[in-house]
Amino acid sequence: MTRPHELPVDPVFALHRGGKIEMRSTARVRDREGLALAYTPGVARVSEAIAADPGLASTFTWRANVVAVVSDGTAVLGLGDIGPLAALPVMEGKALLFKDFAGVDAVPIVLDTKDVDEIVETVVRLAPSFGGINLEDISAPRCFEIESRLQEQLDIPVFHDDQHGTAIVVLAAMRNAAKLTHRTLADMRVVVSGAGAAGVAVARILLDAGIGDIAVADSRGIVHEGRRDLTPIKQRIASRTNRAGLDGSLYEGMKGADVFIGVSAGKVDESVVATMAAEALVFSLANPDPEIEPEVAHKYARVVATGRSDYPNQINNVLAFPGIFKGALDTGSTSITPAMKLAAADALAAVVGDDVRDDYVIPSVFDQRVAPSVAEAVAKAARADRVATR
Amino acid sequence: MTRPHELPVDPVFALHRGGKIEMRSTARVRDREGLALAYTPGVARVSEAIAADPGLASTFTWRANVVAVVSDGTAVLGLGDIGPLAALPVMEGKALLFKDFAGVDAVPIVLDTKDVDEIVETVVRLAPSFGGINLEDISAPRCFEIESRLQEQLDIPVFHDDQHGTAIVVLAAMRNAAKLTHRTLADMRVVVSGAGAAGVAVARILLDAGIGDIAVADSRGIVHEGRRDLTPIKQRIASRTNRAGLDGSLYEGMKGADVFIGVSAGKVDESVVATMAAEALVFSLANPDPEIEPEVAHKYARVVATGRSDYPNQINNVLAFPGIFKGALDTGSTSITPAMKLAAADALAAVVGDDVRDDYVIPSVFDQRVAPSVAEAVAKAARADRVATR
Repeated sequence: MTRPHELPVDPVFALHRGGKIEMRSTARVRDREGLALAYTPGVARVSEAIAADPGLASTFTWRANVVAVVSDGTAVLGLGDIGPLAALPVMEGKALLFKDFAGVDAVPIVLDTKDVDEIVETVVRLAPSFGGINLEDISAPRCFEIESRLQEQLDIPVFHDDQHGTAIVVLAAMRNAAKLTHRTLADMRVVVSGAGAAGVAVARILLDAGIGDIAVADSRGIVHEGRRDLTPIKQRIASRTNRAGLDGSLYEGMKGADVFIGVSAGKVDESVVATMAAEALVFSLANPDPEIEPEVAHKYARVVATGRSDYPNQINNVLAFPGIFKGALDTGSTSITPAMKLAAADALAAVVGDDVRDDYVIPSVFDQRVAPSVAEAVAKAARADRVATR
Repeated sequence: MTRPHELPVDPVFALHRGGKIEMRSTARVRDREGLALAYTPGVARVSEAIAADPGLASTFTWRANVVAVVSDGTAVLGLGDIGPLAALPVMEGKALLFKDFAGVDAVPIVLDTKDVDEIVETVVRLAPSFGGINLEDISAPRCFEIESRLQEQLDIPVFHDDQHGTAIVVLAAMRNAAKLTHRTLADMRVVVSGAGAAGVAVARILLDAGIGDIAVADSRGIVHEGRRDLTPIKQRIASRTNRAGLDGSLYEGMKGADVFIGVSAGKVDESVVATMAAEALVFSLANPDPEIEPEVAHKYARVVATGRSDYPNQINNVLAFPGIFKGALDTGSTSITPAMKLAAADALAAVVGDDVRDDYVIPSVFDQRVAPSVAEAVAKAARADRVATR
């Protein structure tokens, strides 16, 4: 806990004073004429036009370029259920990144409810205000139901970044790592430690991308169809994964595995890392404490990635969400389809291209090619999927 | 109705293309160090501090300076119930004015529900995201219940601008007009045409300010305690107004009245205007068609005000709401009290000061002294009322 008198010492608090975002006008109202155009009486003509043709709201308001960053504060970073007010600085940070990385306007919306029905109905009622919904830091398994119900009820993209952002960046890094080691995804067996939002989404995208085999482990071991303690989401994961029929602990799964993906914070013994296949890939994404320390992972693995900015190969969602929403919004898409996610991962991998190295399987978050490349690929996939309305 | 091929001809549509507002970051994230301060891992320290002391959200997020401009689109300008999407350009315009006139950030939130319970619960759930709620263009009598229930449930200011904004500006203009004609408010008898949001609020603030007598007329005539067709709100108005015991039409009320305030759009015959007292004040606020044409009013009245920008004495809410929220937010106020509203009106009147003339009883909307004066007076009243927490 931070005591008030300590606050000024920490540059983080100095930077956060007054918040990190602001609203700005893009129309000038300096005189009566400007006011009559931007507000009454002129604005009434725009309102009438939209009332007659609601699609015009995308052209004559900011709606087509603005995303709500929605959280209930139940799963904030590594801090857990800290509530909406304490989640606000994180959502503001997200809004800042949307704008700075892709020119997408974003508004932090933190909710004073943890009830799934209430969250869904609240976001549905807000939806006319926004062109997309980015769900953030909502605890599993509630996040799955909230996202799927909102996707059913709304005709704008709804995207839980903790799931899909992570999954897309992991897939991009794996594509480059596979290329580097002359394998295809179909050649590889993956074990995922963690069956929360990120673990489930990583498994799903890797299945969509044609992974050879994948097993997901939760705190009780590998998720398989014989288990009677699974949530509906884990049951669905069990039915689609673990072709090898593994039964037992995460450590069982890691024996001979080509890829380890940690999204759980559960530490892994070095002796188990040693049992992985040759030229293994280790993605230890727990932050700030990776499941496998990079120094240890490097003894056994060819490619090591983490969630940390002070090591190479950082798996950071900011590589994905700004460009993904930019592409979806620019095409007026009604959803973000699996094909759009796969296209985002491909585009992200392609930014690295032939420069791929063991310590460079994913671009830097400050590589300015990333967001435009991802946005363009997502827009193209949206048009192919016919979810684009513009 | 506007046909698409006509749109480019109208400068209003050119100005509205892409909307009128945008989100901007105020923190710079240009490198890993910046990202680590504004986002992970640094932001976690701010979240932890707020989790331990929720009051810190006012210091370390944008919350203390951001207002939600909330509408259900049921009473938009003169257009009526045109729905949330068509209301969005108006709410964007309001957000623009908040920022440009008082430096207050504001987010347009249009709701896909007209149900009073749903609107109240939705805004309550959103409230941790905002430092204040500006309700806008919500039809009467629903607006009264929505506002009062939100005020009860929330510890941030909730202000229905169509009521109080109008009332405050009218009061300011009346104070100056009274001064000009050497009367006090206690000397004057007022008749208000219209018992909707603005009419009710005008009556209330004039009562709070010590008006001599006031009668409110709806479409069926003067509101009095003998009527059996009154809504609860109108019953309360009946019990507090019409000391003269008038019973009959608006026209009855206007005989000998010192002040006419039109907020109904119902036209008034010239012959009736002629029955008002000497040195009468005529406030015909229907826009764009005043209840009494200014040219007609001037034959009988000393001071004439309208809602239009092309006549002198424009009663425009933008004179009030930016400074009022600025004063309330700067003091961390939990509500906007009657004393804060009266102080806003006094400050607004004082900007005109000794320059008062028949055609200058209220400042120009572009008078840069207005918002700071109003904000300062509101902040002072908030401290006196002890609703300020900062």
